Amino acid sequence: MLSLRYTDKELKVSDIPKPDKNDEAIIQVSMAGICNTDLEIVRGYAGFEGTLGHEFVGTVISAPNSTLINKRIVGEINAGCGRCHLCKAGDSRHCPNRTVLGIHGRDGTFAELVSLPVENLLTVPDSVPDKYAVFTEPLAAAYGILERVQISKGSRVAVIGDGKLGLLCAQVIQHALESSILLIGKHDEKLKLARKWNIDTKLLGDIRGSSREFDVVVEASGSATGFSLALSLLRPLGILVLKSTFHGTTEINAAPIVVDEISIVGSRCGRFEPALKLLENKAIDVESLIDEEYPLSQGIKAMERARERGTLKILLRN
Amino acid sequence: MLSLRYTDKELKVSDIPKPDKNDEAIIQVSMAGICNTDLEIVRGYAGFEGTLGHEFVGTVISAPNSTLINKRIVGEINAGCGRCHLCKAGDSRHCPNRTVLGIHGRDGTFAELVSLPVENLLTVPDSVPDKYAVFTEPLAAAYGILERVQISKGSRVAVIGDGKLGLLCAQVIQHALESSILLIGKHDEKLKLARKWNIDTKLLGDIRGSSREFDVVVEASGSATGFSLALSLLRPLGILVLKSTFHGTTEINAAPIVVDEISIVGSRCGRFEPALKLLENKAIDVESLIDEEYPLSQGIKAMERARERGTLKILLRN
Repeated sequence: MLSLRYTDKELKVSDIPKPDKNDEAIIQVSMAGICNTDLEIVRGYAGFEGTLGHEFVGTVISAPNSTLINKRIVGEINAGCGRCHLCKAGDSRHCPNRTVLGIHGRDGTFAELVSLPVENLLTVPDSVPDKYAVFTEPLAAAYGILERVQISKGSRVAVIGDGKLGLLCAQVIQHALESSILLIGKHDEKLKLARKWNIDTKLLGDIRGSSREFDVVVEASGSATGFSLALSLLRPLGILVLKSTFHGTTEINAAPIVVDEISIVGSRCGRFEPALKLLENKAIDVESLIDEEYPLSQGIKAMERARERGTLKILLRN
Repeated sequence: MLSLRYTDKELKVSDIPKPDKNDEAIIQVSMAGICNTDLEIVRGYAGFEGTLGHEFVGTVISAPNSTLINKRIVGEINAGCGRCHLCKAGDSRHCPNRTVLGIHGRDGTFAELVSLPVENLLTVPDSVPDKYAVFTEPLAAAYGILERVQISKGSRVAVIGDGKLGLLCAQVIQHALESSILLIGKHDEKLKLARKWNIDTKLLGDIRGSSREFDVVVEASGSATGFSLALSLLRPLGILVLKSTFHGTTEINAAPIVVDEISIVGSRCGRFEPALKLLENKAIDVESLIDEEYPLSQGIKAMERARERGTLKILLRN
């Protein structure tokens, strides 16, 4: 079967054997999304080698649990060991022995078929088309902020980064708070999109000095400078949500974190259920985030396109 | 009056006019403690110039509120504007217009007399001698951790740093949890002291690899390496309490904070009341933390002594 793989520091479309784990579901991938993490992996992040991709929607073609066969599904990306206390408590996201779809120890979704444990799968409501359902994973990641931080209504919230993740985070938080938040970005056309959703916006270059006015700032730009900007925007006792992983180190001045008693909260994956509900309720505009679709066979071109400055979501279809 | 001042990048004992704010209490300082922050200020931290010192115990000699006169008191170091919403809510620790005793905009306690707002003062129980009461401020800072982070009984907690602050933090947390915690340090004699309090200890050099076993790690070493050590000790979803301010920047790899969904919580000043209660109840051994006492006139020598590697508390008496 066709797959887009990163091996020996090289990205290529290869013909590889079909997955054949008979204790897992085998899913025919209909559509997959390219995430910044995929681009980072190709730059060496996480040391992963194999089939890339973790955002997808597809149809189950075989499974130990036969009720899932022919169902349209999305799948959580962390596959736990099933034996540790975290897995037994029903949340494998931090299982120390987990594999992670297309990121760690498990081939990903840029392929015709993908294999995942049955317990990772959630059926997609009929009203949610593939091109929206493929956003379940990044939307869950955005929603994960609300699992990690209690943001009370009336809070002043800023999101830094007008990329795919930042635009999803801004929409999710604005929807949850039912009040306007601020999105800070570099791209006027992205900010225009956000204004369509009644989100306040500011160009990065227009930020002057330390406003210290926000209760919560979400850093979703994936850049080292976003971190210090976030600190300068927060009021004392404010919360900085670190949402983006990036390769390499960043220099920070720890003194303001202590003096202003700031909390920094890392946030990675969220639960899929609330994300599917948001899509079903048409609460989030993902349509506007789609820039282009490529067939899987043109995966390398698609990755190049995704890497271009200012590109939003690039989808791969089978 | 005599005072130990840092001005024009020079530390000197000077004769200066007495404080004369008639809307504040004037306190005769009996004893003051040298804190790492004082040493950092002399290295340029906080850009402060004036009389150093913020740890003290003394007797009120004049005050707008006459009931305080002749009372033995300690005093909270943040003096708020009294008008902002934080001050009106009764907590001036983050008032944007605050002055901070011996740190920002207000002469400190390494002097014969010091001036502070009446609302900053707390009377010291008779059973607590001066040499213990002078620890109220750093003990409150240690106790402040418990204001910022809910640590449930049975949590696995490590404290990094066997200096004055680390030893206080370790005692306070062990007392609150009623179970043994781990102190990590560089000085065998300090760790021996901690073992006397039934605190588990480990030499920094004996730490191998990432144990990822702790629910909470308190970084109280004030060194940049303590930060990355703390991250390596934490379990996923664990909490790093940043307790020490230090001058300059530190390089961090943000990816593990996001991937393991770590929280980093800055903690500075704590409330004095619970600290005084701990001293009154003899719950904390501060006696063992006193290394030497100097008269204020020998303040420069005292600061030099405090700066020597491995020194614990140096006190200045009038």
